[in-house]
Amino acid sequence: MPVQEAAGISGAVTILDPDQTELLKELDGIFTGWGTAAGAREICPPPVLPVSDLAKFDVYRNFPHLAFVASPLNAQDVTDGPADARFESGVLSGARFGLPHATCYAAYLFHENRRLAADTLVTLVNRCFRNETHYNGLRRLLSFQMREIVALGSFAHTQWLLEEFTGRIEKFSDALGLGLEKNVAADPFFENDGARALLQKLSPVKFEFQHGDLAIASVNTHRNFFGERCDIRLPDGDGHAYTSCVAFGLERWLAVLDEVFEGNTRRALEAVRTAGQQVS
Amino acid sequence: MPVQEAAGISGAVTILDPDQTELLKELDGIFTGWGTAAGAREICPPPVLPVSDLAKFDVYRNFPHLAFVASPLNAQDVTDGPADARFESGVLSGARFGLPHATCYAAYLFHENRRLAADTLVTLVNRCFRNETHYNGLRRLLSFQMREIVALGSFAHTQWLLEEFTGRIEKFSDALGLGLEKNVAADPFFENDGARALLQKLSPVKFEFQHGDLAIASVNTHRNFFGERCDIRLPDGDGHAYTSCVAFGLERWLAVLDEVFEGNTRRALEAVRTAGQQVS
Repeated sequence: MPVQEAAGISGAVTILDPDQTELLKELDGIFTGWGTAAGAREICPPPVLPVSDLAKFDVYRNFPHLAFVASPLNAQDVTDGPADARFESGVLSGARFGLPHATCYAAYLFHENRRLAADTLVTLVNRCFRNETHYNGLRRLLSFQMREIVALGSFAHTQWLLEEFTGRIEKFSDALGLGLEKNVAADPFFENDGARALLQKLSPVKFEFQHGDLAIASVNTHRNFFGERCDIRLPDGDGHAYTSCVAFGLERWLAVLDEVFEGNTRRALEAVRTAGQQVS
Repeated sequence: MPVQEAAGISGAVTILDPDQTELLKELDGIFTGWGTAAGAREICPPPVLPVSDLAKFDVYRNFPHLAFVASPLNAQDVTDGPADARFESGVLSGARFGLPHATCYAAYLFHENRRLAADTLVTLVNRCFRNETHYNGLRRLLSFQMREIVALGSFAHTQWLLEEFTGRIEKFSDALGLGLEKNVAADPFFENDGARALLQKLSPVKFEFQHGDLAIASVNTHRNFFGERCDIRLPDGDGHAYTSCVAFGLERWLAVLDEVFEGNTRRALEAVRTAGQQVS
């Protein structure tokens, strides 16, 4: 891809070609359709959020190394543009906005300081950003798209979402012959929190659906971590809402389909359409 | 919106609610449909591009004050998170990636160092970012979505696109009762270039479609500026491709529809659907 070559940053970002774009939109439409069929409505988040909001979720405590922030330039210092394909920190101004590395943050901020009217489902897609030590084409990009379906409300509601979508993901994987494996994973949100880390050992909070060593979807339960941090209240009483989410890394699905369908994107598209009709 | 309130940054970013999201997707589907009906295929750009690529388009010479770059954090320095809702420049690392302030850059980078097979149309949408001195809800956001249809090829092809879409935009505006005005505008790409600035005075290169003082769409002709900078060749001979683009500021359409339909987003959605069926 020209963008990669021009900067000498192999695989960090990519422009999807027309066939890849059509396949990504088809996949996203299927996952979104599962969400809306389950009762979700879609909201549209920005790809930048105030760093003060991201800090509420311990983003900068738990993984500052992964984070990007959006910094303005000191305009008077950059008259010659970037040197060696980068702007040194000396010409950057302070940053009030961060580039999120997951989509669902905006779902909790959207409901911040609100009382839920009832058990709630929303779906949203966002551009996510991760400062990785290495990039690897569609398997590991600096910026990628993550579609999520998020449940807010009772604990039973949040668990119902995960069960429902685990079933859909497994059926869809079977229909496509992907052979995904469901594996327990660690949720980095809870790593630095003793009590929650203990809880996680007792009861897994994250399962990933993997093709080889590549996770392309996950189901996550947060108990009331986000409900507390955003003061989202249950319909009745003083309790904080429970939340859970199902996440799809869209470019990673392209990477797996590219492997399974041996680079034939049109054939992958037909197979995805057929599989999408079989799972609803 | 909670995101705005939380950071005390009124109107800089927003999370669109379900009705707004549905309206934005309907509008984007209509504009995209005009593009694909005209023969465009869709490509999918990332919301970050190497600063070395953006520099090719004089972004940092012509409007460094508008630019954001994606900076990693010096992880060891941010253990306490942001102070006063911002990270000071001292904890930022250098930046190799910029957040684009317009969508079409990726269309030229996608074709970089290529010879066109024929007159070409592509459509793409991206998140765009602008470091403004003030923000104003959906009318002026730090991050917004811009859908574009881009022509690459002969000069006649690029002018045909603009004429076709000028007609569609005017019909769509009439069907919705928006009363858009078409006005000549300055294209900031050419401001610092004497010869091009003169050319611009002789022959306008940008027209904006305005509702009051708010531009919600534009048609732009670039002659072979981008063709030269990205070394995109015409199908025959050594000439560089001409380019033009039609751009739609999606959140600004929401702002205007909100005003015209007096805050009734569902009624706006119905009107947009009806108007979309009348213009193809």
